Amino acid sequence: MADAIVVLNAGSSSIKYSVFLLRGADMDLALRGQVEGLYTKPRFVAKDAAGELIAEKDWGEGVKLDHAGALDHLVPFVREHFKGDRLVAVGHRVVHGGMQYAAPVRIDAQVLQALRAFEPLAPLHQPHNLAPVALLLERQPALPQVACFDTAFHRGNPELAQMFALPAQYHAEGVRRYGFHGLSYEYIASVLPQLDERLARGRTIVLHLGNGASMCALAEGRSMASTMGFTAVDGLPMGTRCGALDPGVILYLMDQRGMDARAIEKLVYSQSGLLGVSGISSDMRALLASEDARARTAVDLYVYRIRRELGSLAAALGGLDALVFTGGIGENASLVRHRVCEDARWLGVELDPAANTKGGPRISAAGSRTAAWVVPTNEELMIARHTRAIIAAA
Amino acid sequence: MADAIVVLNAGSSSIKYSVFLLRGADMDLALRGQVEGLYTKPRFVAKDAAGELIAEKDWGEGVKLDHAGALDHLVPFVREHFKGDRLVAVGHRVVHGGMQYAAPVRIDAQVLQALRAFEPLAPLHQPHNLAPVALLLERQPALPQVACFDTAFHRGNPELAQMFALPAQYHAEGVRRYGFHGLSYEYIASVLPQLDERLARGRTIVLHLGNGASMCALAEGRSMASTMGFTAVDGLPMGTRCGALDPGVILYLMDQRGMDARAIEKLVYSQSGLLGVSGISSDMRALLASEDARARTAVDLYVYRIRRELGSLAAALGGLDALVFTGGIGENASLVRHRVCEDARWLGVELDPAANTKGGPRISAAGSRTAAWVVPTNEELMIARHTRAIIAAA
Repeated sequence: MADAIVVLNAGSSSIKYSVFLLRGADMDLALRGQVEGLYTKPRFVAKDAAGELIAEKDWGEGVKLDHAGALDHLVPFVREHFKGDRLVAVGHRVVHGGMQYAAPVRIDAQVLQALRAFEPLAPLHQPHNLAPVALLLERQPALPQVACFDTAFHRGNPELAQMFALPAQYHAEGVRRYGFHGLSYEYIASVLPQLDERLARGRTIVLHLGNGASMCALAEGRSMASTMGFTAVDGLPMGTRCGALDPGVILYLMDQRGMDARAIEKLVYSQSGLLGVSGISSDMRALLASEDARARTAVDLYVYRIRRELGSLAAALGGLDALVFTGGIGENASLVRHRVCEDARWLGVELDPAANTKGGPRISAAGSRTAAWVVPTNEELMIARHTRAIIAAA
Repeated sequence: MADAIVVLNAGSSSIKYSVFLLRGADMDLALRGQVEGLYTKPRFVAKDAAGELIAEKDWGEGVKLDHAGALDHLVPFVREHFKGDRLVAVGHRVVHGGMQYAAPVRIDAQVLQALRAFEPLAPLHQPHNLAPVALLLERQPALPQVACFDTAFHRGNPELAQMFALPAQYHAEGVRRYGFHGLSYEYIASVLPQLDERLARGRTIVLHLGNGASMCALAEGRSMASTMGFTAVDGLPMGTRCGALDPGVILYLMDQRGMDARAIEKLVYSQSGLLGVSGISSDMRALLASEDARARTAVDLYVYRIRRELGSLAAALGGLDALVFTGGIGENASLVRHRVCEDARWLGVELDPAANTKGGPRISAAGSRTAAWVVPTNEELMIARHTRAIIAAA
């Protein structure tokens, strides 16, 4: 019998989950999966730590399961599967902790209310993140729940790094650069000491390149700046998001093309980035495999914007000691890493192409003034650790 | 008797003018001034090359002179003042040359029509820039007119530097990073060889810091990237403009605060930047002289954003050989230069504080790996030179 922690990451159309078992100081992933297609074609999947399928269920085309229906299946399944163990807490990935939360927090009705107040800051994500929180709070009030925020890790950024040059009251009211992917960066920062003291103590830029993509400047493991801003659409181009965009473009789209907020939102969140530039795919694998010139342009732009942000973040740090690649693209696209590192030669990065091809972990040459690494991220484990710590402190 | 070229810079409420006399290969400024307060309290001023007032006229409070009325006064004044000389052409500063114009152009009715098509790209400036063009074309069709664009110098930027990660058809239709202050950068690039071969041949970032502010990365005198984007509101914070802003902020202002395009335009163009952050003034001199903590924050943010963009542009160049400060703040605010150079130590800049205090021209120490200079800009002279070259080629 062991204590178990469930980690939930609820989005608009899916709930991803992981179950960790606590054994002494360690936490072992025991189960993971998701309920996807909540409103179209719901499907439940459970896999063990080795990735072997151990359960699945299809509800069929057109069934609308919603978050409550997904939990109705998931919670009994987990309780049954771990009936010899003890479910001690649920940790949630919550995109936005606003100005208030610089660390994870145990959730009660008041905290939930506070987190709901951040929904206007992340209307596409926050309400979905909170849906299972509210359901579990109502149905299982004794079960401890912890919110872990994508923004919290960046709250220690220097104030200047968090400011837009808008009138001061906007900053005071929360219109600021929050930064996201904080759980990924925090995890990476937590494992750097095991890899190399220099990474852990130095000025390191972490590139979280996934379907969402951002970069974070770390000084001695603390976030000093990142590329995402008020929302997760800013900074680097992503699968379907545009990244940095002149605000004058938005005014132009409103005035000259008659686009409203919803049309602009759709454009910058869902039709841009790799998909928009290539016209082919939001998937880096597909673009790298394509012979199409438009696919090449999309990859070129992706690499170019990383190059520019690398300079900007190195400036925030006053120099650079190491790069760390993570996320789906960062961990797997050796060609993207190769090109980013070649572009970063001026920052002292000297690539070891063979090490890069085989995926690292260290991909810089022995004498490289600036090191480069590949480190798989693990946001779920970070949430599980936080959740464990919060309930242990309670 | 000499040939004379008039340079016009027409804005929404003023027309600035300069008159250059051509003497052999040289062009001498003979007269400059403006008609300001066109719609409130019009006032005409003319000064000689030494800055001595030689003529003025007040129309009085509440008089609406408009551009035509201003020209009705200015043109006869210039003709009378230079009656022994020959007015050979008028050169206009025109903010936007679209995708089409990578160089100045002689204006005829067709070109004027083409330039009017760019009004949606710069609705606050382009119509005013073109007002005197249309008036002179009608009244003095034989007088050669030349349009010199703020965007043209950047049209040779690598395609990637000009791209947003929006769907490809937006780029094809002209939604791209144009960059501005091109006449200033072109002038600076033209004088670098006289100062130092290294500046002229190397990787140089020019900081045009005035009421508008931007930065440009030059490789061998050619623009490779700049901080302004589709409009002149992007990039650095300015006197009243916000600079770079997450597009998600605009959506938030629309959705959560019910702001329309005009309210947002007013916010980002007129109420932000140094003025918005400080709540005190858009004038760097006033902020540097202030003891108020808010003034300090505004200056700190200004310097911090320059620091970040310096890294980003150095990345575009793959390294840095020199910095050049220009524009009202760049030429006069030694404290801003001092702080920017200190922040750029990691890029090899070593300041000579005494040289900086007295204003340069060279402000880096003798052994500095990366040089730093102060070079006064002269956009009017650049326009006059272009105008002369265009009519000589005709």
